[in-house]
Amino acid sequence: MKMFEGGVTAAKGYKAGGIYAGIKKKRKDLAMVYSVVPAKGAGVFTKNMVKAAPVLWDMKLIKESSFIQAVVINSGVANACTGKVGDENNLLMAQAAAKALNISADAVLTASTGVIGKHLPIDIITEGIMKVSETITDTPEAGRLAAEAIMTTDTYCKQCAVSFELDGREVVIGGMAKGSGMIHPDMATMIAVITTDANISKELMQEALSNDVKKTFNMISVDRDTSTNDTLLLLANAQAGNREIVHKDESYEKFCNALNMVTTKLAKLLAADGEGATKLLEVKVKGAATWEDAAAISKSIISSNLVKTMVFGNDANWGRILCAMGYAQVEFDPYKVDLHIESDAGSVKLAENGLAADYSEDKASEILSSVVIKVTADIHSGEAEATAWGCDFSYDYVKINADYRS
Amino acid sequence: MKMFEGGVTAAKGYKAGGIYAGIKKKRKDLAMVYSVVPAKGAGVFTKNMVKAAPVLWDMKLIKESSFIQAVVINSGVANACTGKVGDENNLLMAQAAAKALNISADAVLTASTGVIGKHLPIDIITEGIMKVSETITDTPEAGRLAAEAIMTTDTYCKQCAVSFELDGREVVIGGMAKGSGMIHPDMATMIAVITTDANISKELMQEALSNDVKKTFNMISVDRDTSTNDTLLLLANAQAGNREIVHKDESYEKFCNALNMVTTKLAKLLAADGEGATKLLEVKVKGAATWEDAAAISKSIISSNLVKTMVFGNDANWGRILCAMGYAQVEFDPYKVDLHIESDAGSVKLAENGLAADYSEDKASEILSSVVIKVTADIHSGEAEATAWGCDFSYDYVKINADYRS
Repeated sequence: MKMFEGGVTAAKGYKAGGIYAGIKKKRKDLAMVYSVVPAKGAGVFTKNMVKAAPVLWDMKLIKESSFIQAVVINSGVANACTGKVGDENNLLMAQAAAKALNISADAVLTASTGVIGKHLPIDIITEGIMKVSETITDTPEAGRLAAEAIMTTDTYCKQCAVSFELDGREVVIGGMAKGSGMIHPDMATMIAVITTDANISKELMQEALSNDVKKTFNMISVDRDTSTNDTLLLLANAQAGNREIVHKDESYEKFCNALNMVTTKLAKLLAADGEGATKLLEVKVKGAATWEDAAAISKSIISSNLVKTMVFGNDANWGRILCAMGYAQVEFDPYKVDLHIESDAGSVKLAENGLAADYSEDKASEILSSVVIKVTADIHSGEAEATAWGCDFSYDYVKINADYRS
Repeated sequence: MKMFEGGVTAAKGYKAGGIYAGIKKKRKDLAMVYSVVPAKGAGVFTKNMVKAAPVLWDMKLIKESSFIQAVVINSGVANACTGKVGDENNLLMAQAAAKALNISADAVLTASTGVIGKHLPIDIITEGIMKVSETITDTPEAGRLAAEAIMTTDTYCKQCAVSFELDGREVVIGGMAKGSGMIHPDMATMIAVITTDANISKELMQEALSNDVKKTFNMISVDRDTSTNDTLLLLANAQAGNREIVHKDESYEKFCNALNMVTTKLAKLLAADGEGATKLLEVKVKGAATWEDAAAISKSIISSNLVKTMVFGNDANWGRILCAMGYAQVEFDPYKVDLHIESDAGSVKLAENGLAADYSEDKASEILSSVVIKVTADIHSGEAEATAWGCDFSYDYVKINADYRS
């Protein structure tokens, strides 16, 4: 299993493109992903009661369509809270892509991201869809253009690809994601499109995806605001030529592991690029009775405003970590908790058995000044562990969000 | 029923004091409240798994003691995550107060607030307790000194008093509270001590308090971090001379209403003084199927980092409000939602039936620039309503919390 630079065009038989259509002021805002042959589609979507038009459309297609062949994504406007007009515009997007690619509209998934409550500039978009469809190609550069076109407040595009072997064939899973603010598990937290040339049944790819998100995209948070548009899509077009995966056998396991490498990497990229973030925070909780307990506690820590601000300030106020653990509503004995922090600057034990350890504040501060910080909390109640990712909370988060619409 | 300026000394038979003992650098840090006769005690405490030593002590006393006669509170150090030594120090605090006041230690409630993980400077505290006990008196000024001595990052002390009539007697309920950061319902969110001269049974006063917090202290949030120390105490010493309230009759109802006036006022003061806050946000959700639904949605809105930053930035990005409503996990139809904002600058309808209303951005911005902003969300699903309070999210929240311990 090998990770390499690449995105949605890394796997066989996928073309992509990203252009400036005119939705945003000057940055790219329209992306397209296309499989040269019909593919199977799986998806996981936001649990927010308020779902954007493209989310409703995708949920329906994933459930009912026999195959999926393209994804068209715009950034700048989320097409959420837009009612009937929003649904109609979304349909027009799908139809424009269908026409441009000579496929059926119900083989076209859509996604939108940006401001909630405004309508799509649909004429600009349908025109843009025609244009981008003429540019799509299977190069790595094309995948990058698509990854850039879906960004909003991201400061860099997020891609990842993994190759592995099934039945003597090379199989690739590659993906792109965007998300920087309004990020909180439950689920997917943003827009991510993953393509693979693996041959796998629709049921198993959906199961693999749904299970995977619990440990990846659902384990990140930037600001606890679960979006109206969270969308994670997986397309599988069988172009690798392996035997179709129809049982949960060794091939399925390999597929799941490779998928997990891609999703974990994308999730960490999202967490690290949180709005205003200066650091990636990785929190592992171990010694829990169940994975669910460990997950709840680790998520509570990375979601805590007080923990996030203290990390920003390089202040090892570990009591806040204990506090955040305590309100996760998981039973544990605070006096069995050991807390460590670690970075490339070293490692320090902050607390032992729930009490302050004897550590150097300067060393702790130095570790917290690093760009990647790992926190480990051992609650000595079992054998399960879970990891969650987040970022620090800086003035820039406030700055970016105090006037988002300008 | 009449609200007036006053705090824990407003009711008959209570003395209080607040001094600088030496825990903090220079500000007052030790408060005492004393009932001249034994009183009944009720309390509500944090649901955080991690509970500070004073919280465990108080929970035990409220449950087991036949009467309560004093409360001693220090600020600067929370005495949380301090293990056995913390429990011992807490006991020494109670014993010092008991000795100074010539009462039993198990009639003395304690509370601490401040940094988690550090031990109390117990010698300084016990000495301070002797000193403050010599200063306690029943004047309004003494009540104010106590209210000031419990502050940490609060920018002003919080007090409130209400008088009403029972059986032709004047009855008073007065209280003080502190809390500015690490504030989130579940419960009480901070330290609050309420005293009354009402004659009421222990069972009914506990019930009144426990029911009340659901609509007051549990309906505020500054930063979603539920403290390890949240403590709400109510003392009732029967000095008003009314007939003891033992049934849920008209007198009980009057008592509950008066208590609610005090707690609501204190809760709003806490929300408005959130760390770095520049505005008080009051969010009412109406038209819900149940009170619980309305409460969950309104709390979700005031707890949303994105809503809070947009209020700070005077930006009526109403989609974020809808988004926050949607992840409260309450069923409602987004396309039946009406949203209004209002302040003394006017009122504007932001959304109607879940879609953007036709409003002036300038007017909306003007309303959001006010110091008290009311948001109303009608979800047209029933008759229930609930109100929650919060504040905006400014650079100062980050600044205050990035280096709290200096």
